[in-house]
Amino acid sequence: MTTITRVAILGASGYTGAELVRILLGHPSMRITALTADRSAGKTMGAVYPQFSHLDLPVLCRIEDLDWSSLDLVFCALPHATTQAVLAAVPAHIKIVDLSADFRLRDPAMYEKWYGHVHLAPELQKVAVYGLPEFYREDLKTCRLAAGTGCFVVNGLLPLVPLLEAGVIDPDDIVIDSKTGITGAGRSAAEWKLFSEITEGAKAYGIGGHRHTSEFDQELSKAAGKPVMAAFTPHLVPMNRGILGTIYVKGDAGLVHETLAARYAQEPFVEIMPIGEAPGTWHVKGSNLCRIGVIADRRPGRTIIVSVIDNLVKGASGQAVQVANIMLGLPETDGLTAAPIFP
Amino acid sequence: MTTITRVAILGASGYTGAELVRILLGHPSMRITALTADRSAGKTMGAVYPQFSHLDLPVLCRIEDLDWSSLDLVFCALPHATTQAVLAAVPAHIKIVDLSADFRLRDPAMYEKWYGHVHLAPELQKVAVYGLPEFYREDLKTCRLAAGTGCFVVNGLLPLVPLLEAGVIDPDDIVIDSKTGITGAGRSAAEWKLFSEITEGAKAYGIGGHRHTSEFDQELSKAAGKPVMAAFTPHLVPMNRGILGTIYVKGDAGLVHETLAARYAQEPFVEIMPIGEAPGTWHVKGSNLCRIGVIADRRPGRTIIVSVIDNLVKGASGQAVQVANIMLGLPETDGLTAAPIFP
Amino acid sequence: MTTITRVAILGASGYTGAELVRILLGHPSMRITALTADRSAGKTMGAVYPQFSHLDLPVLCRIEDLDWSSLDLVFCALPHATTQAVLAAVPAHIKIVDLSADFRLRDPAMYEKWYGHVHLAPELQKVAVYGLPEFYREDLKTCRLAAGTGCFVVNGLLPLVPLLEAGVIDPDDIVIDSKTGITGAGRSAAEWKLFSEITEGAKAYGIGGHRHTSEFDQELSKAAGKPVMAAFTPHLVPMNRGILGTIYVKGDAGLVHETLAARYAQEPFVEIMPIGEAPGTWHVKGSNLCRIGVIADRRPGRTIIVSVIDNLVKGASGQAVQVANIMLGLPETDGLTAAPIFP
Amino acid sequence: MTTITRVAILGASGYTGAELVRILLGHPSMRITALTADRSAGKTMGAVYPQFSHLDLPVLCRIEDLDWSSLDLVFCALPHATTQAVLAAVPAHIKIVDLSADFRLRDPAMYEKWYGHVHLAPELQKVAVYGLPEFYREDLKTCRLAAGTGCFVVNGLLPLVPLLEAGVIDPDDIVIDSKTGITGAGRSAAEWKLFSEITEGAKAYGIGGHRHTSEFDQELSKAAGKPVMAAFTPHLVPMNRGILGTIYVKGDAGLVHETLAARYAQEPFVEIMPIGEAPGTWHVKGSNLCRIGVIADRRPGRTIIVSVIDNLVKGASGQAVQVANIMLGLPETDGLTAAPIFP
Repeated sequence: MTTITRVAILGASGYTGAELVRILLGHPSMRITALTADRSAGKTMGAVYPQFSHLDLPVLCRIEDLDWSSLDLVFCALPHATTQAVLAAVPAHIKIVDLSADFRLRDPAMYEKWYGHVHLAPELQKVAVYGLPEFYREDLKTCRLAAGTGCFVVNGLLPLVPLLEAGVIDPDDIVIDSKTGITGAGRSAAEWKLFSEITEGAKAYGIGGHRHTSEFDQELSKAAGKPVMAAFTPHLVPMNRGILGTIYVKGDAGLVHETLAARYAQEPFVEIMPIGEAPGTWHVKGSNLCRIGVIADRRPGRTIIVSVIDNLVKGASGQAVQVANIMLGLPETDGLTAAPIFP
Repeated sequence: MTTITRVAILGASGYTGAELVRILLGHPSMRITALTADRSAGKTMGAVYPQFSHLDLPVLCRIEDLDWSSLDLVFCALPHATTQAVLAAVPAHIKIVDLSADFRLRDPAMYEKWYGHVHLAPELQKVAVYGLPEFYREDLKTCRLAAGTGCFVVNGLLPLVPLLEAGVIDPDDIVIDSKTGITGAGRSAAEWKLFSEITEGAKAYGIGGHRHTSEFDQELSKAAGKPVMAAFTPHLVPMNRGILGTIYVKGDAGLVHETLAARYAQEPFVEIMPIGEAPGTWHVKGSNLCRIGVIADRRPGRTIIVSVIDNLVKGASGQAVQVANIMLGLPETDGLTAAPIFP
Repeated sequence: MTTITRVAILGASGYTGAELVRILLGHPSMRITALTADRSAGKTMGAVYPQFSHLDLPVLCRIEDLDWSSLDLVFCALPHATTQAVLAAVPAHIKIVDLSADFRLRDPAMYEKWYGHVHLAPELQKVAVYGLPEFYREDLKTCRLAAGTGCFVVNGLLPLVPLLEAGVIDPDDIVIDSKTGITGAGRSAAEWKLFSEITEGAKAYGIGGHRHTSEFDQELSKAAGKPVMAAFTPHLVPMNRGILGTIYVKGDAGLVHETLAARYAQEPFVEIMPIGEAPGTWHVKGSNLCRIGVIADRRPGRTIIVSVIDNLVKGASGQAVQVANIMLGLPETDGLTAAPIFP
Repeated sequence: MTTITRVAILGASGYTGAELVRILLGHPSMRITALTADRSAGKTMGAVYPQFSHLDLPVLCRIEDLDWSSLDLVFCALPHATTQAVLAAVPAHIKIVDLSADFRLRDPAMYEKWYGHVHLAPELQKVAVYGLPEFYREDLKTCRLAAGTGCFVVNGLLPLVPLLEAGVIDPDDIVIDSKTGITGAGRSAAEWKLFSEITEGAKAYGIGGHRHTSEFDQELSKAAGKPVMAAFTPHLVPMNRGILGTIYVKGDAGLVHETLAARYAQEPFVEIMPIGEAPGTWHVKGSNLCRIGVIADRRPGRTIIVSVIDNLVKGASGQAVQVANIMLGLPETDGLTAAPIFP
């Protein structure tokens, strides 16, 4: 007999909330019991996302109207900064998988520096586990609160952490040049996100100071055992889903490939391509996969790594389900076995 | 205990073949046993479609190298005209779900007129059942060969057939203006299908004479009980998936809506929107759904119907699986319950 | 010696305002003397539209800060409804080319019905000339105020008006199915206009009641000499520029083609394709052209017409310059000779 | 009185050929006298590019059917490798602006290494001048043959060459991460260029070994006065036009900005943005501009440069016209003053 886990999605009207719904609809043992969306409270999910209009889903409600006693776990897909106060008030029996940036940074001073205000739930921050299963699986098994990870950061850490841990690349000269689709910017209306402003063009943004930089610093330094400051530049390209990270490192390509292939041989969601092959973002779309390619530069001792994920899945909602599976003692791939969709 | 159906996909290197793979990977009782692709024989499926490179799938082979004895059912996703000879040679114990145009037209003279050559497998054509479950379910339950249906035609017939059968619209004045994504044109290389030739523009094509017209004539006339010749114009718009049909009819909108709502109340894949609401193609993408909206024109007695499907799913591979489920006595929704993917 | 016309663009921060700037920069005798944008007053045009940041253009100002004495003509690209009060206050020596909907409808009752409020400048409305040069050229030569025309309407009237005037089609059975790019919806932020909500999908909107319907009624009825109510359905497809109208009429294709070819033989911006050929929107992008194709339906006596324009050029800013040229006695093609840009 | 230059475009059926036509139609003193396209010989330009169907252009002919005596200058937009033999046969009185890769590399050994065959016109290669006006203007004034420049290379050299010449960046640690639209790949049909294969995704290609690398080596080494081998990785993103180069250098951002601003103060087609601002590709589309942004990294002594061009204009056909203007002693901006087109 299957034990059903009753879950709520806080912030179901955003793209990561909707993606959680899509994924959880195929999960064998999680049941969507509540959906919140403060500004759309009272509406059906189908009114907000017509692709779900044929389904029997809970009506959107306000967080304060939740019946906490009917819930076992919440996915929190609220905007950054609004999350802290909300999660501090969640009853203790409920497990929490956060998707926001609010609990990513372990150092409160670093949080304050990069986010511009003191942390509002420092006690929770202390117990939060960084929600990247490939590196924090054991801690996640027993935690109550899993912190969201930055989509660019997941994409970059998966190839870089094992290499820094193994000491096969130079930690002082890493360039991470990332290209993302627009869904990472969410559903709130803004002129710069209009179709007309995005289609048929590309741009860099947050150059030299994107907030995910702090998260890279935290995790890369931990892996290297010393402070690491990589160059990181995100770019926006005209597509919905996908992050492609092109990573320039100093290290031998053969060794890089061998290290990654060994490290991820048993991981269900990380695929190392044959050496010399680079993946495109199409090849992970809609799935929880990260595909990584390793290519030797023409200059000896330099290697180029290409890493791709779907920012809404492995970069957000899919990984959140993966984390929840771990926290609940379920098979880690439950609900996450769908193949990528292409074209 | 589940009985496993061993299936082959003939023509796995095309888009409908790949979409069959994607769908069947999630099917509870069909197992992909063989994949054919004459020009890519010997390659892995992952080499042809990298989104599948992490999966353990049969290597692509030539049709003549198939072990027919290991198969229970074949999906045939070969190009039009090449299908007839191939299917005539399939052993009798194997059920066939065709996706091509080769068996759609029941009248050999009509086939010859629209396709420019005599039919090469007239005996098979006689026993083929038109593979549209919503109208041919009973015949499909016992047939050996299901014929593929045109993607535009599925999109148009689902709203029109019940209305003609019920006599609530004028059969002599139907305009079907269809907009399709480019995947319907397949994966073969051609200048007109290049990204640069398609993005940021739209065009009509096959005006007044697209081959799907013959199929509309056949099925609409059958529904009306008299010859019906609708106007049908397909358009290409810059997207991958989706057909949106805008259908102009003479008939009362309330009656049209009521007729369709009643007709499809129990159908798992056809959703009638509340009157006055029109669906977009995003709301069915990746799913086997057809959504239909009914809107009253400002001119009394005229109604506009909007019908949307994903051309690769309900318009091709998804419906093929639905048909196979019926032919095998399986639950009709097996493998087809995934919600649409948006954004 | 060239006489310079000093022009202002009211509402320069919208897409039609920016397109006016682009076109006027290449005009031999118009000089952009002032640019207004109330909410962006004080900013440079380059700050609002970086593509112009290398140019020496007037700083954006508020309308009330304009020096009317320095102006000869204004292009008014303000949002619908805000235009009337503004234009009523323009000094009499200044010619006005409006791009809004505010002066399109000659009948104040019709305006009130379709726009939901009484007209605020009825005296101006009386003297406004409908700004479609191909049909109102003589009136435009001597008018002070030219009214903007709806982009869908320009696209549909160019083929339909000559046919109704000549009596070669049935005025009672016209279907106009239009597909537009998203720039027609302007630059104001809204969720439904986000890239993620538009790319990779299509939808119909304003079905049975889009405001341009009233304008079609006005002009088609005038052409036919009797009330004409066509079916008109606009669709949004994922592209920036372009309107493709597919028009279903009852009438002989040969006669339709002949009528249009004769009517437009001398028009610089209307191109009739050889019979049987249909244009795509790519073939007019960035230009002031309207291309029209005429195709015989398989059913005798029915004809399908395909008409394409760039909604920002012939559908708005380009035609506005064409109109201004006429009002100023300049060569009608001044500033408008650039070929379409493709790909 | 204006002297007319009679020009031919060899290879007018490709995208750079068509773009030359578009630009030259607005040129005050060049007249398109002949257009060649071997496989389309006998067709009109309008049949191959319908956007030109309303214009009176020469019918496409074969190269061997050209009347050389009627020509003053040829633009050669032929595929790489086919160019050498053709240009060797052009009569000596005719000036040549090549757009191919055939004459870019001054060292025949380097050409052979990167292009896989010995050069077929070594005498011409010796006299060819690298067609980048900002660095070779004086040589171009008197040359007969200007070599085409790689689109990625133009994009990267414009910011890098002055910095290397001035010694303000470290020549040993340059990373050039480039994102391009698909038109750079030309109009020949190939599966990987289909709309369905390109839209909604991104990929790197030619990693570690793209042919433009050799051209970077040649020109960067010349500028630095010592061998320079930069990292260069091109990426394909789903858009038609535009190259965005993100360049990581070691050097002070203030000094980098100052150096570039001073170097390009008088250049008509190179715009240095205010420090800290990065351009997008939309802001140059359709124009001959290169816009360059300089942003300080958070790590002192590191700078990120963003450079954008339209690959079909400054990366190919626009620059070719700029070069031709120089070779003919015309104003360098003739035919090239159109503002970018956005949206």
